[in-house]
Amino acid sequence: MGSAFLVSHGLRPDVELTTLHLGPPSAPKAVRMRSQELKHLNPDERSSAMLLEKALATPTTGPVWQTSTPGVQVARLGLADLLDGPVVVLREDGDDVAKATLPPGALYVLGDHLGFTPDEDERLSARTVARVSLGPVSLQADQCLTVLHNHLDRRRA
Amino acid sequence: MGSAFLVSHGLRPDVELTTLHLGPPSAPKAVRMRSQELKHLNPDERSSAMLLEKALATPTTGPVWQTSTPGVQVARLGLADLLDGPVVVLREDGDDVAKATLPPGALYVLGDHLGFTPDEDERLSARTVARVSLGPVSLQADQCLTVLHNHLDRRRA
Repeated sequence: MGSAFLVSHGLRPDVELTTLHLGPPSAPKAVRMRSQELKHLNPDERSSAMLLEKALATPTTGPVWQTSTPGVQVARLGLADLLDGPVVVLREDGDDVAKATLPPGALYVLGDHLGFTPDEDERLSARTVARVSLGPVSLQADQCLTVLHNHLDRRRA
Repeated sequence: MGSAFLVSHGLRPDVELTTLHLGPPSAPKAVRMRSQELKHLNPDERSSAMLLEKALATPTTGPVWQTSTPGVQVARLGLADLLDGPVVVLREDGDDVAKATLPPGALYVLGDHLGFTPDEDERLSARTVARVSLGPVSLQADQCLTVLHNHLDRRRA
């Protein structure tokens, strides 16, 4: 999670990360973090875990974002509720991210090690404008975010 | 440190990472890790810290590598002792890693936030074949290793 936000001396501007939590006891829960307001995120794993833990422990009355700590909000929302605008799906069999056409303002979607369900796949497909691969080696999720940022940074430079 | 070795389902083959510890009480100390023999390295920071702690606590009788845990060795060696073969220095003002000429078997050198001393710079320069930048944004050290691997993976693919 830290890899979405942290750079050498602070936080990246304008990053929004939403994690989707689909396990018991109260799925679905979405946790949204925005770098502009984010506080208490340090490079150690423990600070990321604390922010997430506090968010998931915050009572959610439904599909309304509740702030748990500065820059962190939680709501009872699933994948379908979160899709809005163009989607770029990260997939190992996708086109090379270094060469793909990527629209501005896209939502980048990264699955977990189980992949997407058929229902999730269908909902994603309806909005997907690109399926991209980050490279020839399968990485851990946090490494994926670091590599994705590098390739997006290169486009902006 | 984990980012040098870990990928989605295990360890990268053929990675060798040496960290140089120049603080008191017994500088210089070099800790060398080799993925082929490495054990007990998990994705959590704590496992990396434990391996490093054990290595630094292992008595070193001089410039001879002592094994602290499988795949991890420690010796009383400084930068000059570790340089051998071509060196590629990671620098923010270097050439783009995606386009630079990189010799096989090079040692990639990443400084800390203080940079190199004039003496270190001189020793490095004598062996440096390329100075490369990873991208337009300054990253944390572990992120640098992830991005460097991505660009090297792309060359090998």
